[in-house]
Amino acid sequence: MAIILITGGARSGKSAHAEKRALGFPGQPIYIATAEALDAEMEIRIAKHRRKRKAVDWIEREVPLDLLQALIDTDGGGPRLVDCLTLWLSNMMHAGRDWEHEVTKLAAFMGGQKSPVVFVTNEVGLGIVPDNALARSYRDAAGIMNQFIAAVADEVEFIVVGLPMKLK
Amino acid sequence: MAIILITGGARSGKSAHAEKRALGFPGQPIYIATAEALDAEMEIRIAKHRRKRKAVDWIEREVPLDLLQALIDTDGGGPRLVDCLTLWLSNMMHAGRDWEHEVTKLAAFMGGQKSPVVFVTNEVGLGIVPDNALARSYRDAAGIMNQFIAAVADEVEFIVVGLPMKLK
Amino acid sequence: MAIILITGGARSGKSAHAEKRALGFPGQPIYIATAEALDAEMEIRIAKHRRKRKAVDWIEREVPLDLLQALIDTDGGGPRLVDCLTLWLSNMMHAGRDWEHEVTKLAAFMGGQKSPVVFVTNEVGLGIVPDNALARSYRDAAGIMNQFIAAVADEVEFIVVGLPMKLK
Repeated sequence: MAIILITGGARSGKSAHAEKRALGFPGQPIYIATAEALDAEMEIRIAKHRRKRKAVDWIEREVPLDLLQALIDTDGGGPRLVDCLTLWLSNMMHAGRDWEHEVTKLAAFMGGQKSPVVFVTNEVGLGIVPDNALARSYRDAAGIMNQFIAAVADEVEFIVVGLPMKLK
Repeated sequence: MAIILITGGARSGKSAHAEKRALGFPGQPIYIATAEALDAEMEIRIAKHRRKRKAVDWIEREVPLDLLQALIDTDGGGPRLVDCLTLWLSNMMHAGRDWEHEVTKLAAFMGGQKSPVVFVTNEVGLGIVPDNALARSYRDAAGIMNQFIAAVADEVEFIVVGLPMKLK
Repeated sequence: MAIILITGGARSGKSAHAEKRALGFPGQPIYIATAEALDAEMEIRIAKHRRKRKAVDWIEREVPLDLLQALIDTDGGGPRLVDCLTLWLSNMMHAGRDWEHEVTKLAAFMGGQKSPVVFVTNEVGLGIVPDNALARSYRDAAGIMNQFIAAVADEVEFIVVGLPMKLK
């Protein structure tokens, strides 16, 4: 089944585009949010996201860490929208998980999915090299993760100013 | 009339490309600079820009804030080059203006323009998430603004290493 | 002979793609590393690079500064892979060299090369404007250098999540 990766910068319109792609598949859509409602700024964004999705009856799940399990649990139903991989990566790094292992496992599993998955991710490596080593590690990890998922995806789109460029 | 958005990173060749696009239309071209000659670094850049434009007899205007009014005032003449939207956004934020309202008004107005407008803007959301909240707000605002203008533009080009990719 | 420029963000897969492009040409490939094994983090990366290249018998050279001379010295043999231009630029700036002059000379020389050259470079100008003037200068310099080399290249590819977009 279709595995789609939507990448782009901050506020590039990638989530809106990914929702549209997910809604193009039959079945009740499932929104897998990797964000937890931890801080105010983030809560406001999550709420905004929710309002936008009200017209469609999405099933919503908060999955900060166990993404592969959530995809296994929801397989066979409607299309899944995972928003977003970079936040999942950040959660794993904060929790001390072996992110490279988890990403590899996730990628390896995608071939067998019966329901579509639309992944949203962020491009974070096109600015100046960050000063601190942690930010550099995260930036490198995000690039590696994105390449892994892109390699197993059937379609990859890069969104700039709300407009998609087809990479695959 | 043609509304064109040229986006790209720092020193990607987007201004040079935008000038070329503007000069492709008949009539005396109008350069609308959103930068003010406030500090040395900026002055040098503005001066450089001026020298580059000497071969053509541009009408030059400095418009740090009231961009829509400047476009209304200059409509019906030659093509307008607005360089750049992100600096205009930054000026509005510093001046405490309601940038979201101003951007919405600008976008809504573009449909009725008789003379072409070529907008230059910057991609600023493809690096690591900035540490401070102000930079994050600016980054988000720039992404939102760029999407608004792209939505009403007839053509959108993304410039990397001086070479355009057609997005729309 | 073919001059190819491969650009992209951090960990975008640009080096792997550039190696593949270089190996598409006949003759023993020459790897010109602009990195010096100065610090631990960098050493680990260089070592990783080396392991990846073991299957092919590359000639390896470390050229932190005198890139044009290295290209002159190796011309007439196999394809050259230069990884990467942005590190070379950084080395020149630290050493107080006139980078603009060196880049101009390098670009001017590319027309006469008998063996192919594949250049790897980085996009660093698509994030928020850096706070400090040095980072801003570097960012501007990288953009200018990339445009110079792109202008004389026969092919330019922009890599995102491991996937190439053809710019030229």
